[in-house]
Amino acid sequence: MKTKEAIYTYCLRIADSNLILGQRLAEWCSRGPILEEDLAMTNISLDLFGQAETLYEYAASIKGNNATADSLAFLRVEREYCNRLIVEQPNGDFAFTMVRELLFSSFQKNLYEALYKSNDEMFKGFAGKAVKEAKYHLRHSSEWVIRLGQGTEESHRRTQWAIDELWRYTADMFEMNEVDEELISMGIAPDLKEIQKLWIKSVMSVTAEAGLTIPETPHVIKGGNDGIHTEHLGHILCELQYLQRAHPGASW
Amino acid sequence: MKTKEAIYTYCLRIADSNLILGQRLAEWCSRGPILEEDLAMTNISLDLFGQAETLYEYAASIKGNNATADSLAFLRVEREYCNRLIVEQPNGDFAFTMVRELLFSSFQKNLYEALYKSNDEMFKGFAGKAVKEAKYHLRHSSEWVIRLGQGTEESHRRTQWAIDELWRYTADMFEMNEVDEELISMGIAPDLKEIQKLWIKSVMSVTAEAGLTIPETPHVIKGGNDGIHTEHLGHILCELQYLQRAHPGASW
Repeated sequence: MKTKEAIYTYCLRIADSNLILGQRLAEWCSRGPILEEDLAMTNISLDLFGQAETLYEYAASIKGNNATADSLAFLRVEREYCNRLIVEQPNGDFAFTMVRELLFSSFQKNLYEALYKSNDEMFKGFAGKAVKEAKYHLRHSSEWVIRLGQGTEESHRRTQWAIDELWRYTADMFEMNEVDEELISMGIAPDLKEIQKLWIKSVMSVTAEAGLTIPETPHVIKGGNDGIHTEHLGHILCELQYLQRAHPGASW
Repeated sequence: MKTKEAIYTYCLRIADSNLILGQRLAEWCSRGPILEEDLAMTNISLDLFGQAETLYEYAASIKGNNATADSLAFLRVEREYCNRLIVEQPNGDFAFTMVRELLFSSFQKNLYEALYKSNDEMFKGFAGKAVKEAKYHLRHSSEWVIRLGQGTEESHRRTQWAIDELWRYTADMFEMNEVDEELISMGIAPDLKEIQKLWIKSVMSVTAEAGLTIPETPHVIKGGNDGIHTEHLGHILCELQYLQRAHPGASW
C-alpha cells in the first residue's frame, strides 16, 4: 500500500470518529442534565468537529479530484465511513455518555500523544493541538465517571451498566490493518497495541477510583476499519447528510 | 383557485398523511408486541403506502413537468408536505400507536365514504377501494383500544395518557382552506365539518366502551395544511428520503 493512500485512510479514520461522536454529543444540545454540562458537551462536540475538519482537509488535499472537507464529511455512503464503532453508539443517559467519552477520549489522548512524534508534519501539528482538547475531554469524563460511580446506588448501577454495555466496542478502537502497517513502517503512525496498554492503564485508574468493575470476558464487536457498522450509523448519516443531500453544493 | 390546482393539493394532503403514517407504522416492523400485531401493523403500513401511491400518481399527472409519484413522495422539502400533524407523532408504546390509529382511521373512513360520492371519478374510484382498508384499520384499532382500556390498571393508564396527548392534534384533521372551498363548490370533496361530526361519534362510541375519557379543554395544535409541522416530520423525512437523495433517480 502506498504511503499517500495510507495517510488518506488514516485521516478518514480519525476524522470520521470525531465527526460521528461530535454529532452524537450535539444531540445533547438543550437536553443536558444541568446548564453547565449542556454547554460542556456542546463544546466538546465543537472540538471534535474542528478536529474532523482539519483531517478532512488534509485528506481532501491528498485525494484531489475536487474533493473537499465537506464532500468527505457529507457525501460518502455508510460503508465508506471508518469511524470506531463506539462513537456511533446512542447517547443513552448521562452516565452512558460520560462512560463512552471516558473510553474514547483516553484512547484519543494516548493516540494523539503518539502522533505528536510522527514523521508527518501535518499529523504532528494536528496532534499537538488536538491533544490539549482530548486531555480536557478525558478530565471532564473521568471526573463524572468517578462522581457517578461513587454517588448513589442508582448512579453507580447506571454507570456500571454503561461500562458493561460499551466494553464490547473497545477492542475495535485498537484494530489495525495494512494502513497501520505502512504508516508504522514509515514512522508516521503508532502501533495501536502500545496505545492499548496506555489506554487500559488510564481507564483502570479511573474505574478503580469510581468503584466500578471492568467486564472480564466481553463479547467483542469489531468492524470500524472495514466500514462494517452497527445499525446506528445509517440513522446518524440520514440526519447528518440531509442538508447536503437535499441541496447539493449548498453554500451561505 | 383553479379546480385542477385544488385537486393536486388535495391529493398531496391525503397522500402525505398516508405516506408519513405508513413510515411511522413501518418502524414497528420486527418490534411488535406479538407476531400477529407485528404483521398487522406492517400490513396497515403497506395499505397506506398503496393509497399514497395512487394519489401521488394522480397528482403527478395533473402537475406534469416530469413529476412522478416518486418525485412527489421523496423530493419535496418539509414545508411542502401537507400531512395531518397527528400522523407524524412518534409511535410511543403500543397503546399510543393504537390510539393514534383509531383517531386517524376513523377520520379516514368517514372521509373516504364521503369522497366516494365525489364528482371526480378518480377520487370516487380511489375512495371505493381505500374505504375497505380504512374500515379494517378502524376495526383493528378499535378492538385494541377497547381491550387496553378495559384491561389492567397499567394498560388503561397508558391508553388514557395517549388520548390526552394526541387529542391536541385532532382538530388539525378537519382544518379547511381555499382548496376545500373550491372542491366543495364543485361537488368534488366533502365539508370536513360534516366529517368531524361523524368522526366524534365513532370515536366516542369506542372510548365509551373502553372506559376512557376525552379531554375537555385541549390545547390545540394546527398547521398541516400550511406545511407547519411539529419537530418530528423533519427527522422522518431525513430517513424516508435518504435513498432518493443519496442516489438520485435510483432504480432497480
